[in-house]
Amino acid sequence: MNGRCVITVGDLGEFGVVARIAGRLPQGGTVLLGPGDDAALVSAPDGRVVVTTDLLIEGRHFRRDWSSGYDIGRKAAAQNLSDVVAMGADPTGIVVGLGLPADATTDWLDDLTDGFRDECDLVGASVVGGDITRCDLVVIGVTALGDLGGRAPVTRSGACPGDVVAVAGRLGYAAAGLALLAAGRTEPAELVDAHRRPQPPYACGPEAAALGATSMLDVSDGLFQDLGHVAKAGKTGIVLDPEAFTVPASMEEAARLLGADPLEWILSGGDDHALAATFPDGVRLSPAWTVVGRVVDGKGVQVKGRSLEHGGWDHFRA
Amino acid sequence: MNGRCVITVGDLGEFGVVARIAGRLPQGGTVLLGPGDDAALVSAPDGRVVVTTDLLIEGRHFRRDWSSGYDIGRKAAAQNLSDVVAMGADPTGIVVGLGLPADATTDWLDDLTDGFRDECDLVGASVVGGDITRCDLVVIGVTALGDLGGRAPVTRSGACPGDVVAVAGRLGYAAAGLALLAAGRTEPAELVDAHRRPQPPYACGPEAAALGATSMLDVSDGLFQDLGHVAKAGKTGIVLDPEAFTVPASMEEAARLLGADPLEWILSGGDDHALAATFPDGVRLSPAWTVVGRVVDGKGVQVKGRSLEHGGWDHFRA
Repeated sequence: MNGRCVITVGDLGEFGVVARIAGRLPQGGTVLLGPGDDAALVSAPDGRVVVTTDLLIEGRHFRRDWSSGYDIGRKAAAQNLSDVVAMGADPTGIVVGLGLPADATTDWLDDLTDGFRDECDLVGASVVGGDITRCDLVVIGVTALGDLGGRAPVTRSGACPGDVVAVAGRLGYAAAGLALLAAGRTEPAELVDAHRRPQPPYACGPEAAALGATSMLDVSDGLFQDLGHVAKAGKTGIVLDPEAFTVPASMEEAARLLGADPLEWILSGGDDHALAATFPDGVRLSPAWTVVGRVVDGKGVQVKGRSLEHGGWDHFRA
Repeated sequence: MNGRCVITVGDLGEFGVVARIAGRLPQGGTVLLGPGDDAALVSAPDGRVVVTTDLLIEGRHFRRDWSSGYDIGRKAAAQNLSDVVAMGADPTGIVVGLGLPADATTDWLDDLTDGFRDECDLVGASVVGGDITRCDLVVIGVTALGDLGGRAPVTRSGACPGDVVAVAGRLGYAAAGLALLAAGRTEPAELVDAHRRPQPPYACGPEAAALGATSMLDVSDGLFQDLGHVAKAGKTGIVLDPEAFTVPASMEEAARLLGADPLEWILSGGDDHALAATFPDGVRLSPAWTVVGRVVDGKGVQVKGRSLEHGGWDHFRA
């Protein structure tokens, strides 16, 4: 007993928890009806709605001893918002299904809620609704919606031989951070923080769509593996130039500390939610994009001069 | 070893599981882009989209020894589609986040998938996307979308003194079924099946909106408790007439077997996903609706001549 009163979600009960969460969630201009009814109502001016969902399980996608509630909320929202922008759309809202142990504290829940709120705020979206239930471990299901604003969706197919392959956002940071945490380290902080809270390049998704990207995806399972989907869907090959990737100083340091190859993190690491896209040759890209390869006749993804140890992440086999 | 080859999701791997599921899911007319990309694209002709989500946890919302995979899929879809129609909207699509133990069999997964598909098919919706991950217990997050077709959403607020209170669909069946299963019984089958697979009165939601319902909700936590939300939101009272509820013969039998009060199931049982709505007095309702009470000046929900033992379901306290 330390004199501080700790309130748990079990103390509040379901309706108390829902009221507490809803009270922390401002509703933006896209929301016509927010939390509190059977369903929410979100504007879809395009007449079509982009929808994507992800399920995050404690111990598999995050650990409460490695990440704060706030970080987990930011990350869970980010990975779904990133899928929306990867179609070329602007996110409008998310709904969250939450499984919580009865002993989760209201402080932790507030942090989690604020994380969802702040990540959505980066893109002008709102948390418009959700569901909460008891579960022995923390389970978070996020579904994000988006609006294309009249643009065509940018799918995984459509890459053509001759296109350039470009990436926006970070690659390998989160994978390096996870390797550091697993080795009991918390430095370099830039990498560990990148695992806890990705920084997807949100604006680059709609930008790429407007620039005529022929294909695009969110890099969630590793660039090498994810570009494999682009190659397969486009019935083309892709050749990556390993010289095109910049290894930041923090990653060089982490690689030295752990005896690892930084290019392996960059090419195989997920969780940074970079965007990878193909563009017709000659398109003038903003500085947010780095050209890292080319679409070619052929099959699969090659990295000039390298053979990768493993390609990426499989949730049932890894 | 019985000579039959059992394939698990662990054998298939994540991408094999996704391909297997997607292959069983036809895409209807509302779907502009189905599973297989970062996100799906669904038509939203109204320019607004209804969205709702629910999280179902094994052992809490279903048991694999009490319900088949098919039943669980039907139920998980039903409870979300029901929330959509409770706003007066027509469901268009669902996305499903699935946590599965590695030893779940592909047969079970096929059944689950078919359950989602068949329930969606009842309302012209499709399973448009999802996410799959490993989890020690089965976790199902469903998000459903819907289109209002130009109608105003029917919320929980709006009930006025003088309105009639009407219900469509079953009440108490699933609660009686659950009580039977918990007592080790599997008969009467009508009630046990009702727990396994609800039969929401889907068509009644948009119908009620078109008839000018002043408020509506999906009965998921028990009629008494859920009408409490309507009374609170409308700043009114509600009086229910216990004589208005028909107790089916199977429920009389179950009540006799278990020494229970059938009206308690009817008024406090969730999971049938009936619709409860208020209508201006004099509205001509279809036979799917039964008038069971009236909106009055005052506060809270009263049942003429009764005091209820408990009001409904709280996911953290029950």
